[in-house]
Amino acid sequence: MSGQQTMLGDRKYAIIGTGALGGFYGAKLQKAGLDVHFLVKSDYEHVSQHGLIIESKDGDFTLPQVNAYNDVNKMPPCDVVVVALKTTQNHLLPQLLPPVVKDDGVVLVLQNGLGVEEEITQILPNVHVIGGLCFLCSNKVGLGHIRHLDYGHITLGEYLPAYSQAGITQRMQQIADDFQNAGIGMELAEDLLLARWKKLVWNIPYNGLSVILNASTNELMANPHTSTLVEEIMYEVTAGAKSMGRNILDSFIQTMLDYTVKMTPYRTSMKIDHDERRPLEIEAIIGNPLRTAQSLGLDLAKISCLYHQLKFIDARNQK
Amino acid sequence: MSGQQTMLGDRKYAIIGTGALGGFYGAKLQKAGLDVHFLVKSDYEHVSQHGLIIESKDGDFTLPQVNAYNDVNKMPPCDVVVVALKTTQNHLLPQLLPPVVKDDGVVLVLQNGLGVEEEITQILPNVHVIGGLCFLCSNKVGLGHIRHLDYGHITLGEYLPAYSQAGITQRMQQIADDFQNAGIGMELAEDLLLARWKKLVWNIPYNGLSVILNASTNELMANPHTSTLVEEIMYEVTAGAKSMGRNILDSFIQTMLDYTVKMTPYRTSMKIDHDERRPLEIEAIIGNPLRTAQSLGLDLAKISCLYHQLKFIDARNQK
Repeated sequence: MSGQQTMLGDRKYAIIGTGALGGFYGAKLQKAGLDVHFLVKSDYEHVSQHGLIIESKDGDFTLPQVNAYNDVNKMPPCDVVVVALKTTQNHLLPQLLPPVVKDDGVVLVLQNGLGVEEEITQILPNVHVIGGLCFLCSNKVGLGHIRHLDYGHITLGEYLPAYSQAGITQRMQQIADDFQNAGIGMELAEDLLLARWKKLVWNIPYNGLSVILNASTNELMANPHTSTLVEEIMYEVTAGAKSMGRNILDSFIQTMLDYTVKMTPYRTSMKIDHDERRPLEIEAIIGNPLRTAQSLGLDLAKISCLYHQLKFIDARNQK
Repeated sequence: MSGQQTMLGDRKYAIIGTGALGGFYGAKLQKAGLDVHFLVKSDYEHVSQHGLIIESKDGDFTLPQVNAYNDVNKMPPCDVVVVALKTTQNHLLPQLLPPVVKDDGVVLVLQNGLGVEEEITQILPNVHVIGGLCFLCSNKVGLGHIRHLDYGHITLGEYLPAYSQAGITQRMQQIADDFQNAGIGMELAEDLLLARWKKLVWNIPYNGLSVILNASTNELMANPHTSTLVEEIMYEVTAGAKSMGRNILDSFIQTMLDYTVKMTPYRTSMKIDHDERRPLEIEAIIGNPLRTAQSLGLDLAKISCLYHQLKFIDARNQK
């Protein structure tokens, strides 16, 4: 056995939220030989008896037996605690995290948007927080049954207070190695904040407009008015990034537009949440970037328009 | 007979577009004894044989016989030609207007939005153009059959090139007298441009958001996010007015908001057009004000967002 493989066994993982995302990544880690502990909500009974089934474009597999829990207090303290809830569930984190994070442990936040790492440090001031940006298409299709459709890679960045640049830390590298050994493409970002804003360049216009206009990405790009609006909103996002000292090149916007035109028609995660009548991740993806820019004196008018429209739609949808 | 009543008989009216609006005002004028000539499109056969039926909160009446035409070339030259089409039909005006407007005649444009008077002067440079802002709830409920639900008053303002203030002209006064004698409340505006922008303060946010969010005015006002957005858009409209040198007080915005909260839940005209799958009056109500402000160096970002969203919805709705 190589030294690296020995190190693998050292880290105990907790997956907080065994849905389409947490279930997929957690199962891949366990399959690669890691010690993984799953917090399971709605299908706890099923998963604790039958484990997990993963259908994946990279190869199907089943885990007949997994460590499933319906109570964090029964979970062992873990080295890496993966937050894989929707951000709309983050009000639960003050109860969920403290029992399961080992002293000097890492919380890995696999969530969209901005400001989520800060929420973790407010709960656990001494923990190390790493943000992970997932590019994943997966759905939960049944009890303990996840279908992985496309993509899957993760960009990691370590969080420091006020989003100071952390560079590439050993902690990030170790976690990236674990995921990479499990077959997951990993990228390391020296600047988590820049990585998060870059993802928002795509997420804000497409998530927002797909819900407001009941449209897929290709419909938005096929109409000259909405493709113009998408681009204008992307420029607002880069202005927001700039207000926090992060520079995103115009060419990145063009790359995102070209990429979206070419990709398979895509139903955004917020559109899926909307169609499934789940709460929308408006605050993490749109509200927090908007308020952060506003606090720095910048009015992102079009994003503000989307924000209010989405809040209206979400409230009506939850009735 | 008073001199005024004698003058009434002098003016021949043409109604270009005998729908819910043109049919209502034209019928009221004819009932008051004026010589009115109606251009009728879809229900020409019926109207020429059976006339018009008006159900109205102010009293029902029928006109068994009206002067109906399906071709402007058969109409007599008229002193006052009332344009009562939707602005989405204005591309027809170069064919419709010249045969029916008397030399030294008046074109009275009973349409929403901005820039419509200018379109008339481009077709007929020597004609007098008066803009009329109608506050009317009426529907066409059958062939030659119009239901007047509420309101009905009109604000008139004379158009001068570049929307210079025209003051109260004799022409306006005469037409207002005709309408007033027909039981229609009239207001005279010294400054047509100011009157148009004031109407846009209401029309842009409520027409736009009611279509985009599939909502009535009371739903928009009941949610704190959309009521905030409505108010922010109203401030953008007043900024647009200001870019053309017209000052609308903040108190006017508050009055419009309070008035809308108190009024009966209302389906805006653009929402009705959308639901009936008719083209939306986006250019007159939103595009023209937006572009006018842009040409003066002002970016109305939220209104621009509405504009692109509506263009997308309208294109899909017309498929």
